[in-house]
Amino acid sequence: MNHITVYDIAKEANVSVSTVSRVLNDTAPVKKSTKDKIMQIIDKYQFQPNALARSLLKKETGTIGMIMPDITNPFFPEVFLGAESEARIKGYTFFLCNTSGDSARESEYLSILSEKRVDGIIFMGGRINLARCKPELVKEVTDISSRIPVVLVNGQLPNSNIVRVSTDEAKGARLVTQHLIDLGHKDIGFIGGVDHMSTTIQKVKAFKSQLEDSGLVYQPDWVLHGSFSVRSGEELMKKMIEMKKRPTAIFCVNDFTAVGAIKAVSEHGMKIPDDFSIVGFDDTPLATSIIPEMTTVSQKSHELGKTAVQILTKLLNKEKVKRLTLLEPELMIRKSTGRLKN
Amino acid sequence: MNHITVYDIAKEANVSVSTVSRVLNDTAPVKKSTKDKIMQIIDKYQFQPNALARSLLKKETGTIGMIMPDITNPFFPEVFLGAESEARIKGYTFFLCNTSGDSARESEYLSILSEKRVDGIIFMGGRINLARCKPELVKEVTDISSRIPVVLVNGQLPNSNIVRVSTDEAKGARLVTQHLIDLGHKDIGFIGGVDHMSTTIQKVKAFKSQLEDSGLVYQPDWVLHGSFSVRSGEELMKKMIEMKKRPTAIFCVNDFTAVGAIKAVSEHGMKIPDDFSIVGFDDTPLATSIIPEMTTVSQKSHELGKTAVQILTKLLNKEKVKRLTLLEPELMIRKSTGRLKN
Repeated sequence: MNHITVYDIAKEANVSVSTVSRVLNDTAPVKKSTKDKIMQIIDKYQFQPNALARSLLKKETGTIGMIMPDITNPFFPEVFLGAESEARIKGYTFFLCNTSGDSARESEYLSILSEKRVDGIIFMGGRINLARCKPELVKEVTDISSRIPVVLVNGQLPNSNIVRVSTDEAKGARLVTQHLIDLGHKDIGFIGGVDHMSTTIQKVKAFKSQLEDSGLVYQPDWVLHGSFSVRSGEELMKKMIEMKKRPTAIFCVNDFTAVGAIKAVSEHGMKIPDDFSIVGFDDTPLATSIIPEMTTVSQKSHELGKTAVQILTKLLNKEKVKRLTLLEPELMIRKSTGRLKN
Repeated sequence: MNHITVYDIAKEANVSVSTVSRVLNDTAPVKKSTKDKIMQIIDKYQFQPNALARSLLKKETGTIGMIMPDITNPFFPEVFLGAESEARIKGYTFFLCNTSGDSARESEYLSILSEKRVDGIIFMGGRINLARCKPELVKEVTDISSRIPVVLVNGQLPNSNIVRVSTDEAKGARLVTQHLIDLGHKDIGFIGGVDHMSTTIQKVKAFKSQLEDSGLVYQPDWVLHGSFSVRSGEELMKKMIEMKKRPTAIFCVNDFTAVGAIKAVSEHGMKIPDDFSIVGFDDTPLATSIIPEMTTVSQKSHELGKTAVQILTKLLNKEKVKRLTLLEPELMIRKSTGRLKN
């Protein structure tokens, strides 16, 4: 008998599973003769109670579900690493659910994670980044969060009390804008992202307000949306280059689009930062893999993941936590930005 | 009562858990009066049997453990995506275990996965890529594989029958070498990797034999090992550039080291492919994100993951599978390689 279970033992001892459980976990007294009989069977099969059985008895599985929109965007694996570094110490293992940011996929995984009785859920991407999230999608998460602690990373859900941890993206966007202004740029554009997603909206809003605070003009024509991919950055940058009057510096929604922008500039035979200053966002490993190394904003991805797990374990221990934990972003100045040439 | 379980129902109905299970799963007849009582309680609490309880009864968890060495190396997220695309259809969810290729971490996760009674394990990196894997590390995996189906991806364990799926890395290395020879290169070097890891050894061996088959000289001085990182590629390429007599083309162990090599060439004010032809391996998204776009070898990462899950499910269904499934690598010719200049 390879996979012997508490059920097999209960059957052979002719007792209920709860009785076996009481003996194994020493949670309540069991008649000595019954206990002896059960212990004999346990010895006979060298039974070791498995994690599943134990967790059913303790209502705890030692697992965390992590929902992420895109495992191939290096930002998310970095968050995973941070989360894992903390979770390992605390004895948790991850279910990883990759959703492509698709709400139907998220719903499917939320239901699976709930079924699998994970101890907590870390939610990234998709619906928590929508400017307007449909009430039924919000409800799905709030319903689950009434049973299972949920932490939202870099996102939020309207009219919900779900705990959040975020990098201050607006502050990051202001740092980028001010850096470009400090280098003498007055004509600054923004590319990438999707205009109904909060991560894009927040950045553009902060970008605009920082420009205006410095007495510069925000040019809506120089704000081009598309998606978050390298290809989108490349296409949008081409459009920007072909404009009659064009900016001298470009703030990109993330590192992927910035890489695309850098490619487009190079393909047009122009130089960075001489002809264009380009800034990314996220400080993924990509930023230092390319030439020139990219100025970008660190979202503290590792710390985000770590903090999310710390908050989750506090929630599990019924400790008080802040509704929103904000991490400070950091501007990483490298070689894709330079002083405006006259 | 939020998390009502089969235990709670059994208790309230004053029957054993197995009886509740028999009613829920309709696996054996139960006295009508008992069944009615149980159904009433189920209705009262609107009880839905959870996945954990069902899996305990069916001895099946619907989960696959995936062990990977480095989630931040884009190759592995691509394998994950492929595996997930297949697993979702079949109703499996993944435990993701990131090991940094460290055997102690692998052992820890193997034991956790075994405890969590995953239905199968996909193993990548670490010990399965060592040229000489210690017998006790092999035994750990073979022991588990006698209870839980295990599939090794791009690796192997000596003296074991564990099922494997691999891209033919040696063939990939021959494709690279021949491509450079076809471009007129006679002086070809190899950089990156670790000399006790099979993925490095296989590539160098095939590289050497392909050179010799073409009547070219294999120069051991032009084979520089380090690690698999961008930084390592950069450092090794610097050494190569500083050599008195140096090669004109470089085969890099993976895309990361190739990116590093391209950076080093550019930092020395030289051009690719005019001064050096550079080839990577893996065809990660990185390869098309940089300038010039990189010639590399596709390991069919998506297909590797998908195939691993297909094999795993066959093993679970007790179907016959081949001991080794080899996928054909594909040379992706882009702009980092060019004809030898005279």
